[in-house]
Amino acid sequence: MPRYALLVEYHGAPFAGWQRQNYQPSVQGAIEAALAKLEPRAHTIAAAGRTDAGVHATGQVAHCDMERDWDPFRLSEALNFHLKPAPVAILQCAKVADDWHARFDAVERRYLFRLMARRAPLTSEAGQMWRVNHPLDAAAMQAGADQLLGSHDFTTFRSSICQAKSPVKTLDELRVEVVPRAHGTEYRFHVRARSFLHNQVRSFVGTLERVGAGAWTPDDVGTALAAKDRSACGPVCPPQGLYLAGVTYPENPFV
Amino acid sequence: MPRYALLVEYHGAPFAGWQRQNYQPSVQGAIEAALAKLEPRAHTIAAAGRTDAGVHATGQVAHCDMERDWDPFRLSEALNFHLKPAPVAILQCAKVADDWHARFDAVERRYLFRLMARRAPLTSEAGQMWRVNHPLDAAAMQAGADQLLGSHDFTTFRSSICQAKSPVKTLDELRVEVVPRAHGTEYRFHVRARSFLHNQVRSFVGTLERVGAGAWTPDDVGTALAAKDRSACGPVCPPQGLYLAGVTYPENPFV
Repeated sequence: MPRYALLVEYHGAPFAGWQRQNYQPSVQGAIEAALAKLEPRAHTIAAAGRTDAGVHATGQVAHCDMERDWDPFRLSEALNFHLKPAPVAILQCAKVADDWHARFDAVERRYLFRLMARRAPLTSEAGQMWRVNHPLDAAAMQAGADQLLGSHDFTTFRSSICQAKSPVKTLDELRVEVVPRAHGTEYRFHVRARSFLHNQVRSFVGTLERVGAGAWTPDDVGTALAAKDRSACGPVCPPQGLYLAGVTYPENPFV
Repeated sequence: MPRYALLVEYHGAPFAGWQRQNYQPSVQGAIEAALAKLEPRAHTIAAAGRTDAGVHATGQVAHCDMERDWDPFRLSEALNFHLKPAPVAILQCAKVADDWHARFDAVERRYLFRLMARRAPLTSEAGQMWRVNHPLDAAAMQAGADQLLGSHDFTTFRSSICQAKSPVKTLDELRVEVVPRAHGTEYRFHVRARSFLHNQVRSFVGTLERVGAGAWTPDDVGTALAAKDRSACGPVCPPQGLYLAGVTYPENPFV
C-alpha cells in the first residue's frame, strides 16, 4: 500500500482535539472519514502532534496508507472536497516510503502562540488568539523565557495526565515577538523543540503572561522550573491562541 | 445631550449589514440595543459608512447622543460589556461637539479587501478573505487599478440600487499589496476616497481579479470605465474579504 504524507491546516474550535474519539468530532476522525469516501474501509492515520481540544494547526503532518496509487495532488484535492465544510484543509500531499512515519520520524515541532493585549473584545479574530486586558512587558517575558531554554526536567510545565515516559525535554527556542496592532499589541511566542510534554506550551505561555503582567519576576520562572513541581506552574492559558506551526523531518517530504 | 464618537470594529458574517432592519440582525441594531441597556429608550446612531451584509470593519466610526455625561472610557467599556457575545467591539470613544456628525463630517473613507490565491480551502481564516484557486498577476491588477484613479463617472462600478445623487467620485488610492503566505499568496487592495458608490469596492476588486487571472487586460478596465455602463463591469466579488478600515475627519476625534 503506498503511503502519503499530508500537510494539514485546521481551526481547532469545533474539535475535541486531533485524536479520534467515539462520540466527539476530531480532526483525525474528519480526515479518516474523508479517506473512507475515496477508499471505503476503516482508515487509521498518524500525526506528528496530537493537538488538544481547541488548538489549531497551520503545519500539522500526518500520514495515510492507500490501496490505489494516487497522484498526490489529486489525493489532496479529493480530500479537500470531502472535508468540506469542516475547517480542515490538506495543504500538500507527497508520496513517502512505506516505513516513513509522521510521528516517529519527526525531529522537531514548532508551535506559535498568539496573545493579544487590548481592552476591547476581539471580533473577526475571536477564537484565533488569547486576549488579556492589560499591557504586557515583552522584555520581562523574554527574560523569563530564556530561563527555560535547554535541557531540563519540565515536570512543573507538564499536565498531570501527560503520558511521556520522561519529563526531561530540550527546549531549543522560546522567542517573544512583539507585533504592534492598530489597537493593542500582539505577542507571538515562537516555541521549538524535538518534542513536547502535554500542555507544555500553554503552561509556558500562561506562566510568562504572569511575568509580562508584573505578577511574577523573570527569575520566578527559573525557580518554578527548578521546583520540578506541577503546583509551581503559573495558570495554563486557554487553547485558542495555540497553533502547531510546523514539523521537521530529516528530509522534507513536501519538496 | 452630550454626543460621543465611537470607533467600531466588527465581523460582518452574522449581520445583514450596518443598517438597522426590522427582522434581521444588524450592527447598528446591536449597538443601539447596548445603548438601551445603559439609558433605556430608543436610540438612533449614525455611521460614516453603511456597510453591506457580510462586510467587516476595523475602523467604522459612529456617533451617539446620551442623556448622562459619560466618561468616554467608561462608556466604551459598558457598551462592550452589553455587546457580548456579538462580534462588535468599541475600540475607542470620545466626546465630540453636539453638531459633530460621523457621516457628514467624514472627509475620507478607507477600505481594505483581502483576496487569497491558493488551492486549499481556508480554515482559521475562513470568512475573513475571498479565496480563489488560481494564481494572480499583481502587476497586471495594479495596471488595471491605475486606470480607475482620479475623478470619473463610475456608473460601471455602481450597484443598480445605489442611491447616490451622482455617479461621479474621486478615487484617491487603489493599491495592490502582495503578501506572501506560507501557502498561497494574499493580495490586499487598499482603497481610499472621500466617498464611495454602493458596491464600488467589490465591483473594482471583482473586475481586477479578472485582470489578475488573465481573462481581462489592464486596458479593458479603462474601457469598462469609459463605457459608463453597469453591464460592462466584471463580476462583483463576495463580501467576506471587505473591511471598512478607517474614516478621516478634519480633526481626529480619537486623540
